[in-house]
Amino acid sequence: MVVDKLCIFCKIARGEIKSQSFVAENDTFFAIHDIQPMAEGHTLVIPKKHCVTLLDIPSNMGKDMLDLLKKVSGELMDEKLGDGFNLVMNNLVVAGQAVMHAHIHVVPRKEKDGLHSMTQIKGR
Amino acid sequence: MVVDKLCIFCKIARGEIKSQSFVAENDTFFAIHDIQPMAEGHTLVIPKKHCVTLLDIPSNMGKDMLDLLKKVSGELMDEKLGDGFNLVMNNLVVAGQAVMHAHIHVVPRKEKDGLHSMTQIKGR
Repeated sequence: MVVDKLCIFCKIARGEIKSQSFVAENDTFFAIHDIQPMAEGHTLVIPKKHCVTLLDIPSNMGKDMLDLLKKVSGELMDEKLGDGFNLVMNNLVVAGQAVMHAHIHVVPRKEKDGLHSMTQIKGR
Repeated sequence: MVVDKLCIFCKIARGEIKSQSFVAENDTFFAIHDIQPMAEGHTLVIPKKHCVTLLDIPSNMGKDMLDLLKKVSGELMDEKLGDGFNLVMNNLVVAGQAVMHAHIHVVPRKEKDGLHSMTQIKGR
């Protein structure tokens, strides 16, 4: 497994740091709650191997990625934490990436929650 | 193939409407430019079969999904249309979904472009 010894997400993936907010995992991805949630249930889906951006994630991990994204977002909907949800992935610093290990935000949404997706039509 | 006869993305997928902005495709996904781009190169990656949200996309299409997302975003970077990029997916109306056929936005980003990802730390 490719890892970066200083990377916080690699440390969580390897079990070196116990994340109190562990949500789920499969062979190649894991999910944890965001430590600065924008909404209750805000979760990160993260490759276990060290990938900096989307471009570094091997395509044969796509099934696991989609599987875990659906599991996480489906459960958030089942738990009534949202009536919809956004996926957001910031790739590289100019796009807002803060931790340089690829991660996809799953943000549950409700009416009048004060949030706004980047591509959400204004006024909605 | 599951299709919705009235759905604009299904019509483009079936070739009933010629999209002037066709970008790329593989077996189960295609990519077109957004008709209201937030930045030059803003592209949509879309399943060919009619899926309403992420939750309807079969996991065995994950490899094709990741493949096309990487191809599109990698080419945007190669073409210097961005120094980074966001993926954004709005699932259901409350999350900003405007066309009820699942689609993932790929938005190239540059410094001081005036855009802001939903999960981007303020001030960056």
